[in-house]
Amino acid sequence: MIAVPLLRSLPHHQVRVTDPFWSRWREVVAQVSLPGQYEQLEQTGRLEHFRRAAQRLVGGFTGFYFNESDVYKWLEAAAYVLDEVPSSGLRTQFDEAIGLVAAAQEEDGYLNTFFQLNHPKLKWRNLGSMHEMYCAGHLFEAAAAAHDCLRDDRLLSVACKLADHIAARFGPGKKLGYCGHEEIELGLLRLAEAANRPDYADLARWMIDVRGSRPSPFDLELDDAEAMTISSFAAHMLRKDGKYSGEYAQDHLPVREQSDVVGHAVRAMYLYAAAAEVADAELTAALHRAWNNLVGRRMYITGGIGPSHANEGFSVDYDLPNFSAYAETCAACGLIFWANGMLHRTGNSDFVDTMERGLYNGAISGISLDGSTYFYTNPLESRGNHKRTPWFSCACCPPNIARLIGSIGRYLASVDDDGFYLNIPAGLEAEFEVKGVKVKLTVESNYPWSGNVKVRVEPTRPVIFALRVRIPDWADDVQTDLPDQESDSEFESGYAVFRKTWRSGDVLTLDFEMDAKWVEANPKVRENLGRVALTRGPIVYCAESVDLKFPPQLFCVDPELPILAEPKSALHGMIDLAVEGLAQTEDFPDALYADAGSIALRPVTARFIPYFAWANRGASDMQVWFRQA
Amino acid sequence: MIAVPLLRSLPHHQVRVTDPFWSRWREVVAQVSLPGQYEQLEQTGRLEHFRRAAQRLVGGFTGFYFNESDVYKWLEAAAYVLDEVPSSGLRTQFDEAIGLVAAAQEEDGYLNTFFQLNHPKLKWRNLGSMHEMYCAGHLFEAAAAAHDCLRDDRLLSVACKLADHIAARFGPGKKLGYCGHEEIELGLLRLAEAANRPDYADLARWMIDVRGSRPSPFDLELDDAEAMTISSFAAHMLRKDGKYSGEYAQDHLPVREQSDVVGHAVRAMYLYAAAAEVADAELTAALHRAWNNLVGRRMYITGGIGPSHANEGFSVDYDLPNFSAYAETCAACGLIFWANGMLHRTGNSDFVDTMERGLYNGAISGISLDGSTYFYTNPLESRGNHKRTPWFSCACCPPNIARLIGSIGRYLASVDDDGFYLNIPAGLEAEFEVKGVKVKLTVESNYPWSGNVKVRVEPTRPVIFALRVRIPDWADDVQTDLPDQESDSEFESGYAVFRKTWRSGDVLTLDFEMDAKWVEANPKVRENLGRVALTRGPIVYCAESVDLKFPPQLFCVDPELPILAEPKSALHGMIDLAVEGLAQTEDFPDALYADAGSIALRPVTARFIPYFAWANRGASDMQVWFRQA
Repeated sequence: MIAVPLLRSLPHHQVRVTDPFWSRWREVVAQVSLPGQYEQLEQTGRLEHFRRAAQRLVGGFTGFYFNESDVYKWLEAAAYVLDEVPSSGLRTQFDEAIGLVAAAQEEDGYLNTFFQLNHPKLKWRNLGSMHEMYCAGHLFEAAAAAHDCLRDDRLLSVACKLADHIAARFGPGKKLGYCGHEEIELGLLRLAEAANRPDYADLARWMIDVRGSRPSPFDLELDDAEAMTISSFAAHMLRKDGKYSGEYAQDHLPVREQSDVVGHAVRAMYLYAAAAEVADAELTAALHRAWNNLVGRRMYITGGIGPSHANEGFSVDYDLPNFSAYAETCAACGLIFWANGMLHRTGNSDFVDTMERGLYNGAISGISLDGSTYFYTNPLESRGNHKRTPWFSCACCPPNIARLIGSIGRYLASVDDDGFYLNIPAGLEAEFEVKGVKVKLTVESNYPWSGNVKVRVEPTRPVIFALRVRIPDWADDVQTDLPDQESDSEFESGYAVFRKTWRSGDVLTLDFEMDAKWVEANPKVRENLGRVALTRGPIVYCAESVDLKFPPQLFCVDPELPILAEPKSALHGMIDLAVEGLAQTEDFPDALYADAGSIALRPVTARFIPYFAWANRGASDMQVWFRQA
Repeated sequence: MIAVPLLRSLPHHQVRVTDPFWSRWREVVAQVSLPGQYEQLEQTGRLEHFRRAAQRLVGGFTGFYFNESDVYKWLEAAAYVLDEVPSSGLRTQFDEAIGLVAAAQEEDGYLNTFFQLNHPKLKWRNLGSMHEMYCAGHLFEAAAAAHDCLRDDRLLSVACKLADHIAARFGPGKKLGYCGHEEIELGLLRLAEAANRPDYADLARWMIDVRGSRPSPFDLELDDAEAMTISSFAAHMLRKDGKYSGEYAQDHLPVREQSDVVGHAVRAMYLYAAAAEVADAELTAALHRAWNNLVGRRMYITGGIGPSHANEGFSVDYDLPNFSAYAETCAACGLIFWANGMLHRTGNSDFVDTMERGLYNGAISGISLDGSTYFYTNPLESRGNHKRTPWFSCACCPPNIARLIGSIGRYLASVDDDGFYLNIPAGLEAEFEVKGVKVKLTVESNYPWSGNVKVRVEPTRPVIFALRVRIPDWADDVQTDLPDQESDSEFESGYAVFRKTWRSGDVLTLDFEMDAKWVEANPKVRENLGRVALTRGPIVYCAESVDLKFPPQLFCVDPELPILAEPKSALHGMIDLAVEGLAQTEDFPDALYADAGSIALRPVTARFIPYFAWANRGASDMQVWFRQA
């Protein structure tokens, strides 16, 4: 029995972000990121592929076979942004891209430029490797976003035609098939809602339910020699003995029997994010197991996940190397999607704690402060070797972080029939209806730099509902003030619950203590033994050699020494921290090794900046976890 | 102008190893390693390939294309061992293998079972990737060893026939060609000496001199599409832009213009080891540059080299990760070969310091104490994930460590016209001639466990010569005693020089201080900041969880606390160390991260064992570099 999720996000246009932090990011994405990405989509042939497909040409597809997904993710992000930031240039690009996509679709609904151009005879025969349904899923999400945000249904009809094409071939009583790279499940769920087609949600649920079948449809595909000639990721799906291995694509077990997060991190996140939306009790229990494994044993302090370059994903418990961390930007985005799904299913704020960790650290670290360059991987230590670039041959991350920022309101607040959930106290204006009464709710804040938050409630008439405010796991102290409160606040599932008759003009003030503090890792994380990391509120800090004038690896922490918050950063109003400590000198004999005793330490004050803001001033050494002196 | 090396090794039968340490290893190799490896050679088809080639069959080669080199290295090792440890079983295998090799050779001298069976039309057309000359080089070394140790010239005639075949095709005025994996140069040099064919040495020198030509012969081979169909390592030889890159095979620059050690570590070592034997002043200067780069910036404390799995080789200066260290056993062997070559060219004991570091640590760590299992890679930290195995699909390491142990006398002592060099004071009996007088020199020691060494000199009649004893870099104090010494000892190039009229029965006693001590790494090695490693004499120590009963990563060092040497190890008479220190508990909240302050330390005494002896009692956590408390 599938339960309807307890909570839901508000539609895009009902949450407007107003705090300086996310407003700035949205502006940067609208003015810099999306126009720049569109140029890349054009220059790299991604758009040209649609033109060629529209002309029914053969051949000429270059780059990765899943490259069209970047166009769809760009369209999704543009839809969010155009709803709030009018831009005639962006609008022109948006319209052009939609026209190209629509024209490329074949009569029978099929749409995938790689197969249309280069392998028209091999459609749907290499689901394990070729991301055919993955691309479709991103089209579905883009179509839903254009519908939801702009009431623009041009993509929606393309998407439904493709979804119908797929549904005619795969599903109960038809062919057993799902995608090696999960995403179509999320896409179908979004499309089901936007197009009011519950059968698409049924198809998504079926794909989740049959995943892990034996024999796996991917295993059977390995016998299709012709289809395998185009497979470039098959190596990850094979064991050393040459036999099929399902872990890479979370196809090793039925999802409801899974426990640990394994394989490719982005795939796992997209799968579990979709599963959370349609889970019955048994599936929810499996998701809880996987979640606990991830958050309890396999997640960086930044919310980065998937430490291993080899599989772009998970390795073993407590394996969290800092310097060589993969921690793909897309995986952090996926973690946020899943966390939101788990929050909505359970109403428990623990999931927001992790969602917030990813949002303010390991996800937005993937985009430069000016929105022009990106990280694919997000290590927690650099020796000057890690630089942002404007694009990647596998360019999944740039449009992913753009669509995350564009849809940020989805994560800050939720509602249920009983009222409003302020998950993250960022500045926003929300409109919602509770018990038939329209309510406008305004949050004023300078989050995440300040813990002072003012929530103003304006119902059209007095109405009893619960305003829930999440108490973050990092907050050691929270002060609340609600004049004329009719009842004491309760504490439920990590939320302070203010249930009363709300009248227009009621103001709840909150003050989350935001002292900088040192955090330790579980000793089973061997990389971080003897080390501490600095946090303030939801922000994880790092230090860069560009500020320190020496490599941050030489800095040693004395937790007893003071830390001064400095609200005068040159970096867009962020709070930097001035940390007193000790620095090891690099004086050493001209050799690799020498008898112990030559190391000297000197007192220094080191500037720490938010982790997400690193590598914005050229190549720099960087570190998050610091030795204790 | 090529100078003859200053020093030379003694022929194999003129240095007999007698100390318990190397005697035990030689016995283990003779009784366990070589018989076991021969079984693997048979079971894995390596010997069968020779049988098929002898019958002029087509097809049927399985496994790596260079697999026959393991047979040659096994033959080389067996020749060394059979000279000292008579074994009828080993002798039978030795004879059988020689017969198989000889029968497989083609009329024109060609011999390579991979090409003979699977690609007879592609001979010598993919030198960059296919190790054809590499295999030949190992045959040449085996042939020279059989000749030198056993006066068995069956392989020698096979080898010369193949060398002539190669010399007829490649060389000055013929085709420009050398091997992607260096080794033939060393092989030709050994063969030149054994067969008294200086033209082979000329060919080796030519191959060293033309390496790094532009256009590279390997670059040209990339245009031979047919030959490229069999290449499985081409990816390492290409840059990201698809163009040829020479670094992987040290083909990026002429050798005499090289400065840093780059690319595949074993290849680099074999190249430089050969180059050291034939170097003029300019080439010697290049080798010095490369050596200083390696030893000053790119070598583990164990003598392990080549940190990176990606290229089985070098990365950047000071990049020496412990847990993920590649540090291939073969690369440590190669370092020892090169060090010996540099010693012989220069007479400087610095090279012995490094050679000894590799011999007693990072090389023999590659073989289990019982000789039955091996390491391919030799990390400096384990989380229980690293286990020894009896064989590898790429099985270069097992016979390489066997031939190193079998020929250990080559490294312990050297001679020149002026006398004798005791490079490493292991127990041995040497016979040499100086100024026309035969001298027997006996070293009694329990090295490396004791620094007490007695050197007895027995010339057939009194003779003036210099007995040089290396003063190791790790020895803070050395006591020497030579009764009736006619002159004070001098100190030259790292050797204490005892020049006098030696009479039969003269005894020099030495006492190298062997206190355990903590060593630091250069702070530029970020992985080891705040860490120390324990050494005693030439031995690098580690700790394993099997002894500690907790993961050694939790151990913290206080260098002021005492260390007790314990000569009662169950492990073959080794000296273990009992180290007082502190151990961090693993008590921690049920989470990955928590506010700092929950870590507790408790005093413990930890058993440390020699690094080379780790992983001999099942899977264990292990560490070399320990945090200072």
